[in-house]
Amino acid sequence: MLEVHAFATANSVKVPIALEEMGLDYRLVPVNLRQGEQKTEAFKAMNPNAKVPVLVDRSAPGGGDVVLGESAAILVHLAEKTGQLLPKDGPQRGKVFEQLFFHASGLSPAFGQAFVAGIQSPPQPEAKARALAEVERTLGVLDHILEHQPYVAGDEYSIADIAHFGWVWRHKAIGVTLENFPFVARWHEEISTRPAVITAIAKTMALAQ
Amino acid sequence: MLEVHAFATANSVKVPIALEEMGLDYRLVPVNLRQGEQKTEAFKAMNPNAKVPVLVDRSAPGGGDVVLGESAAILVHLAEKTGQLLPKDGPQRGKVFEQLFFHASGLSPAFGQAFVAGIQSPPQPEAKARALAEVERTLGVLDHILEHQPYVAGDEYSIADIAHFGWVWRHKAIGVTLENFPFVARWHEEISTRPAVITAIAKTMALAQ
Repeated sequence: MLEVHAFATANSVKVPIALEEMGLDYRLVPVNLRQGEQKTEAFKAMNPNAKVPVLVDRSAPGGGDVVLGESAAILVHLAEKTGQLLPKDGPQRGKVFEQLFFHASGLSPAFGQAFVAGIQSPPQPEAKARALAEVERTLGVLDHILEHQPYVAGDEYSIADIAHFGWVWRHKAIGVTLENFPFVARWHEEISTRPAVITAIAKTMALAQ
Repeated sequence: MLEVHAFATANSVKVPIALEEMGLDYRLVPVNLRQGEQKTEAFKAMNPNAKVPVLVDRSAPGGGDVVLGESAAILVHLAEKTGQLLPKDGPQRGKVFEQLFFHASGLSPAFGQAFVAGIQSPPQPEAKARALAEVERTLGVLDHILEHQPYVAGDEYSIADIAHFGWVWRHKAIGVTLENFPFVARWHEEISTRPAVITAIAKTMALAQ
């Protein structure tokens, strides 16, 4: 049984979405960020970066327990374990990685910093404005990509869509509208209605209740 | 012949390091960031995110030209093309991806934002302080990892070391010392002296001359 240590967050939700899409059994283990549980020694032994999600896979190919942090690294591990949502070769494989890293280095930090700046006390309007400018820029890049193809890495739905969706799904939480990004809006609407996505969001949000 | 569109930057240098380590022929094509060449329509047709480096590989496995942005995605492509610096399976493969994504989402944005905040006019001391705090935190995470193993993903040198090295190599440019991070300092020193790394740094820095 796969264990996913997670909370009701944008990065956490990506992993249950992938697991539901792939039809794998898993158990969600709540890590209450409000109580700082990600900073305990027990948690940091799994991920020294002190962040959710973490995957524990005791049935990994190649033998040995796999304990992984970083949502996108977990998505790659699950895709290679099942042969799903990541082409085995060809140009689209590279594009999936390009988009996973554009997400990790661009869109995700921008959304994350806008979210954190918005809930900090005292308020940090300058930091929030800087982060929101980068949110708009990265959404513009994604909109340009999605104008020419149905999914972020090409013609096929992939783990790169799941990664981007994790944060774009939370756009209202940072006060952003998708009005100026019609192709992102169309893609977001389509992915939001996938049964695996609906189920995964419900299970992830329940972690905070 | 592989083409690498690049400039004298922390993200660019990672690609020539990997190419030198792997013994592949390549041609560096300068993209002068000081003149905004990364924002031309011709460049954005290769990478809509308007950032270096970009790889063009006309001899990719699986057929079809591969045009890739995102330095870490390029490292993955080259590792899978050559079978070098990324284990084919087992727990260390997952750890390489974990570290590539920790780099992309954590260490790299912190270093990048500290660098940008330091050269902006007017100066942005608050933004620089916030970025430097995250630089110290992520270097601390890396130091903890390197206390227990020689390389960032385990016992073997991998593309994850190359990714982290790209920014750690530039620590003096953001006014940071490695004094408080002895295991990072040992690792940085060792990688700095690899012949492939020395050659790649010289070729990359020459792009700005």
